Amino acid sequence: MSNRTQYPSKVLGDAVEAIASLPGVGRRSAMRLAMYLMRQPGENIHHFAAAVDRLADDIRYCSICRMVCDDDICPVCADRKRDRSMVCVVAGIRDVMSIEETGQYHGLYHVLGGIISPINGIGPGDLSIGSLVERLQGPEAPAEVILALSGDVEGETTSFYIYRQIEKFGVKVSSLARGLGFGDDLEYADSLTLGRSILQRQPFKV
Amino acid sequence: MSNRTQYPSKVLGDAVEAIASLPGVGRRSAMRLAMYLMRQPGENIHHFAAAVDRLADDIRYCSICRMVCDDDICPVCADRKRDRSMVCVVAGIRDVMSIEETGQYHGLYHVLGGIISPINGIGPGDLSIGSLVERLQGPEAPAEVILALSGDVEGETTSFYIYRQIEKFGVKVSSLARGLGFGDDLEYADSLTLGRSILQRQPFKV
Repeated sequence: MSNRTQYPSKVLGDAVEAIASLPGVGRRSAMRLAMYLMRQPGENIHHFAAAVDRLADDIRYCSICRMVCDDDICPVCADRKRDRSMVCVVAGIRDVMSIEETGQYHGLYHVLGGIISPINGIGPGDLSIGSLVERLQGPEAPAEVILALSGDVEGETTSFYIYRQIEKFGVKVSSLARGLGFGDDLEYADSLTLGRSILQRQPFKV
Repeated sequence: MSNRTQYPSKVLGDAVEAIASLPGVGRRSAMRLAMYLMRQPGENIHHFAAAVDRLADDIRYCSICRMVCDDDICPVCADRKRDRSMVCVVAGIRDVMSIEETGQYHGLYHVLGGIISPINGIGPGDLSIGSLVERLQGPEAPAEVILALSGDVEGETTSFYIYRQIEKFGVKVSSLARGLGFGDDLEYADSLTLGRSILQRQPFKV
C-alpha cells in the first residue's frame, strides 16, 4: 500500500492515518487494525477511544517521586509500610514497574523522566534531579540512594552527575550489581560483563 | 510483563489494556504505545481518539456494492465514467483498494464481506451474495462478473457457489488469471502455480 493510497472512506482513512502515526506501526498494519476495530461492536470502539483519550488530561505524576499515578501522591509514596530509608532512582516508569515485579524492593522511588543525553538534547535540567536533591534535604530524607540506571555511557554519565549533586548530603549512594544473569553461560557472556562479575565476586553461600 | 501487572495508574492501565486488545499487539508493545501517546500534546491524543471513535458510528457501506464509504453510494458506483458492464466480486474492501491501485480495472465492484468458511461458521447467508444476484436482475445488470477471490479451497468454494447462483442469468463469468508473478524464477515456483502457468499459457507478444 503506497503513501498515495486513496481510502474509500474519509472516516476509515483518518483512523488509519492516526494509527499509522504510532511508532513502529506501518500503514498496512494500521489498515488491518482499523478494519479490526471497525468490525467490533460500537460500544467497544467507544471504550477503546475513551481509554486512549483520557491519556491526554487524566494522567498525573506523584508530587514526591514523579511516578505516573491517579492522585497527587502515588500508592508507593503513600504506603507507610514502605521502607522510607531508601530511594531508588530510575529513568522511567517502566523501570519502577520492572523493579516492583521482582518483589525484592520495599523502599521508595524517584523517577527522573529520562537520562542525560546530549545527542538527544536532554540535559540535567530536563530531568527531575532538582526534586531529588530537595528530597535529601527534606524531613523524610533517605539514608541511601540507589542509582538504578542503565549500564551504558548515558546511564553512567547520569549516575555520575547525580552522585556529584548528592554526595555532599552524606547519603549512602549505591548502584545495581552487574554481572552474569542467572543461568547465563560463561561462553556466551560479553567480556565486559564477565570481567565485572569476576571483580565484584561474592562470598560463596551454601 | 506478566498478566498480573499492577499498573501504577488506572488511566494508563486502561489505555494499555485497550491497546493490547488489538490483534497482534502484546502487552509490552501496548505499554510502549500508551507511553508514546501519553507524551504527545493533548490535542494530538484527542485527535487520535476521535479518529478511532468515529469508526463506531460514521462508517457506512455503499448500498449497491457494499464497499466502505462516507455516503449512501460509494465514489466508484457513483462515477458515471466507470464501465458498468462488468462487476468484480471481491471478499473485502482491501481487495478493492489493491485492484484500484493497479489502475487496470475500470468496472464496478461487489464486496462480499468475507468468504464461505464452514470452519469459521461463515455460510453463504452471511455474505452479500443475495444483493449480487439482485444486481444481475436490475436495470444496470452487468454483462460480465469477474470472480476475484483467493485461490485457496475456501476461495474456490465461494467462487463455485456464486457461479451456481448466477449462471442462470446468462452473464459471462470469469476469474483472475493465475500463474507465475512477473520476475518470478521458475526454479522457486510451487508446482501448482507453474502447472497452471503452463496450462493457461498465452500467445507470445512482441
